[in-house]
Amino acid sequence: MSGRLAVVVGASGGLGRAFVARLAAEPGWSAVIGVGRARPDDWPEDPRTPFLTLDLLDESALADLARQLRERGTLGLLLIATGLLHDTDLTPEKSMRAVSAEAMQRLFEVNAVIPSLVAKHLAPLLPKDERSVIAALSARVGSIGDNRLGGWHAYRASKAALNMMIRCQALELQRERPLAVCVVLHPGTVATGLSAPFARSPKTLFTPDDAAQRLLKVLSRLQPADSGGFFAHDGQPIPW
Amino acid sequence: MSGRLAVVVGASGGLGRAFVARLAAEPGWSAVIGVGRARPDDWPEDPRTPFLTLDLLDESALADLARQLRERGTLGLLLIATGLLHDTDLTPEKSMRAVSAEAMQRLFEVNAVIPSLVAKHLAPLLPKDERSVIAALSARVGSIGDNRLGGWHAYRASKAALNMMIRCQALELQRERPLAVCVVLHPGTVATGLSAPFARSPKTLFTPDDAAQRLLKVLSRLQPADSGGFFAHDGQPIPW
Repeated sequence: MSGRLAVVVGASGGLGRAFVARLAAEPGWSAVIGVGRARPDDWPEDPRTPFLTLDLLDESALADLARQLRERGTLGLLLIATGLLHDTDLTPEKSMRAVSAEAMQRLFEVNAVIPSLVAKHLAPLLPKDERSVIAALSARVGSIGDNRLGGWHAYRASKAALNMMIRCQALELQRERPLAVCVVLHPGTVATGLSAPFARSPKTLFTPDDAAQRLLKVLSRLQPADSGGFFAHDGQPIPW
Repeated sequence: MSGRLAVVVGASGGLGRAFVARLAAEPGWSAVIGVGRARPDDWPEDPRTPFLTLDLLDESALADLARQLRERGTLGLLLIATGLLHDTDLTPEKSMRAVSAEAMQRLFEVNAVIPSLVAKHLAPLLPKDERSVIAALSARVGSIGDNRLGGWHAYRASKAALNMMIRCQALELQRERPLAVCVVLHPGTVATGLSAPFARSPKTLFTPDDAAQRLLKVLSRLQPADSGGFFAHDGQPIPW
């Protein structure tokens, strides 16, 4: 098979699903493949948008995913849309007094380790002779230079770590696949389970579909020379 | 007691020991306290430079350390000199193909989680009305913007995460202790077990004592307005 695939990892999240829906409406993809820990009950039954279930920390499962995808074609776009900010046991820290080893380790695992493993296993599927894109969802609060408020220690640190991992991978891809674009993105504050509880005003919230549209537009304009960078939903670069 | 303490965490490492020796020769400290997982056999038997042994991931042990230190005085200087780059099971990655969850999690734990927990428990001992310093040893390879080579993925990411954690803590300290200076430092390549195997040339190597002297000089010149920054052994700021 020689199809051109778009893969969205973390496809059960609000933004991941919106990416799949937007990409499925584009003509250039032979399939838009959702990947995640659990298939949403209402995932559409469409052979062009299958959902593949796996444990993203399991490297043998990721290697198996890579084999399955390779049979289907080459990887034109990999969106890594996993991410964790809070859950029932996890609240973003307002003060250094609230930091804990457990919360740091958990956020590093979800926000930095998983995207790194995904990129490790799927980057070899990028074509060598045409443009392709890897983009991981970071966040402006993961900018160290832009951090003027403090707080959210573990989440911020995990996104800074993600930014570094993706930059390392971009530098390596520049040598092996000079037409690849590999970046981290700030989606803005999107009305999803992740960020909605922390939005300052409903006016600053994007719908997942808005955010997906804006980010895909940004990605469509990036050049290989932009690889290794950090970009906001308006296309502007963000300091590290 | 109202002594003025210098505390070096990770004091059994090459650079940690050199800091203790240099500080012990300065007149301003009532005690220079080494902290680490295991007391070196040849640690000097000097009541002014005691070595306190503890598991740095154990928050109850860190809280106990804070209580012991509080009885001795206020904290004028906290140097966090822990750090891991390689050991028998861990080799810095030359390619994304070599990244593993285990190595990432281990380096995050040692290089980012431990310093954050140490700062959490010991920052409350900084005086409110006089200058004090917290400095954690980072590394230039932890600069995302300065990363033009790639490789060493997990170490780089763990230092970027450390840089963010310390910046968060510096921002918080600016509100509570406006005279505190809280920074991350690049020591250069020092002839210690951590970095010596990777030095490109013996000429670029500092002895631990050189490096300690240079870094203490940098710290002596930093002002509260520099808090939250990242500085090299020559005093120059490093981009994030």
